[in-house]
Amino acid sequence: MNKEVLIVGLGLIGGSYAKRLKSKGYKVYAISRSKETIEYAINEGIIDYGDTNVSKEFVSRFDLIVFGLYPHVLLDWLNEYKDYIKDGAVITDVTGVKKEIVYKVDEILKDKNVSFVGSHPMAGREVYGIKNSKEDLFIGSNFIITPIESTNPRAIDVIKELGLDLGFKNISILSPEEHDSMIAYLSQLTHLIAVALMTAQDKTHLEKYTGDSFRDLTRIANINEDMWSELFFLNKEELIKQIDLFIDELNNIKELIKNDKIEELKDKMRLSTERRKHFNKGE
Amino acid sequence: MNKEVLIVGLGLIGGSYAKRLKSKGYKVYAISRSKETIEYAINEGIIDYGDTNVSKEFVSRFDLIVFGLYPHVLLDWLNEYKDYIKDGAVITDVTGVKKEIVYKVDEILKDKNVSFVGSHPMAGREVYGIKNSKEDLFIGSNFIITPIESTNPRAIDVIKELGLDLGFKNISILSPEEHDSMIAYLSQLTHLIAVALMTAQDKTHLEKYTGDSFRDLTRIANINEDMWSELFFLNKEELIKQIDLFIDELNNIKELIKNDKIEELKDKMRLSTERRKHFNKGE
Repeated sequence: MNKEVLIVGLGLIGGSYAKRLKSKGYKVYAISRSKETIEYAINEGIIDYGDTNVSKEFVSRFDLIVFGLYPHVLLDWLNEYKDYIKDGAVITDVTGVKKEIVYKVDEILKDKNVSFVGSHPMAGREVYGIKNSKEDLFIGSNFIITPIESTNPRAIDVIKELGLDLGFKNISILSPEEHDSMIAYLSQLTHLIAVALMTAQDKTHLEKYTGDSFRDLTRIANINEDMWSELFFLNKEELIKQIDLFIDELNNIKELIKNDKIEELKDKMRLSTERRKHFNKGE
Repeated sequence: MNKEVLIVGLGLIGGSYAKRLKSKGYKVYAISRSKETIEYAINEGIIDYGDTNVSKEFVSRFDLIVFGLYPHVLLDWLNEYKDYIKDGAVITDVTGVKKEIVYKVDEILKDKNVSFVGSHPMAGREVYGIKNSKEDLFIGSNFIITPIESTNPRAIDVIKELGLDLGFKNISILSPEEHDSMIAYLSQLTHLIAVALMTAQDKTHLEKYTGDSFRDLTRIANINEDMWSELFFLNKEELIKQIDLFIDELNNIKELIKNDKIEELKDKMRLSTERRKHFNKGE
């Protein structure tokens, strides 16, 4: 095995990609703006070599580049350095929204022989940075690839293989639009629910009375406001739709309770129990 | 150590109480309607002795009785068998609502020299029955005791000591009304959110695209519809208030997104992150 990969951005996700790919035999290279991060990654054996500078000499060596950057940083980076990327290279991202990224990247790269394939690793932690990265973060998780009409089919295969090497269980293909609708519900809405649970009540000392369910629902209330606000606004329309959908259903359930509709309420719980069975990890 | 306890009802909570108290040196006795449960509990060494019958001879031996029953079953049991309980005994429950229980039990026992102290162990699992019970279920968790004016202070101390023996970290005293308001928010609302997340969307195969956050928020969507509908209806008014409070806040957050109020949205996330720090277990 002699695969090489350049990872641009060594946060929680970039760092976890690096650890996992290194353990799978890749030679792993990285670019980070932080000298401390690069030094840490080299000292810990997370990467083989890294740089804080973006140079053509370095970037142009790679057939495969993964961008672990905030959405707007990714677009800026490509606008500035696209000419450094090797002819024929395959590149991917880890961004949590797709419609506002994929078509823009396609436009930026339109005159280049570089194949971009959008992808989204559906795993994360409520903590950030390379020091919290984990080699096994993706085991049993879902990986979504979001090609568009112009995407090179061979490049899709390269990113599928990357997903397998990273340890994902399900690798799915969705359009950017389908992805964003799905993710507004499955990920963005859940983060807003967690935030709302923490901010709706000003009572103090709730932690002395809570059980595990509230802890579970608010684990992600520990949230990186810069990254998530960027993701929320980039997917604003779809997110608002999904919030409304959820509030409508919670109101439906409230009305069942208000009007003593015991059997209808139990039906909701039975449906919920039945559906939830399919969501356990590793099944 | 020579403590003895009778546990009436050997479900998830009763079974976990039994396991833990046995390991702390108690002699543990139990009553369950299910012969299979009693046999299992004896064979597994979870209890010292158990019976499927409720007899005066057996029940009247105990200075301490814990009821691990559904709310309406608890009230029925006490109405039927209150005369079997030993003079001077201290009894407690594990019920998830208090206002609709504590005053009724007080009324049932008004002519008896039996001290009831309501309590609520804030721990659980999304699975049920003695086979899922765990000795360490309560370690690091919260225990709420809900005395009323007529409650015997010595009996409160007995139940506090029981809470310590069970391994709880925080033992708090709340009025039944405070308890029900708190629990409507911290536990009942969270279960309804989990159910609504599973039932709002009819899209199939969501499990192929989900990440850990949706799994976290819906773990408890696997729900016992009989027990929880009983708890919801017993706390209906308070629950409806707390659902409305939460929906209002989620709508506030939606409006921030809709109107591009980036800084206000970030403020919510910063507040949420700050508050969530206090909720980790064992801190």
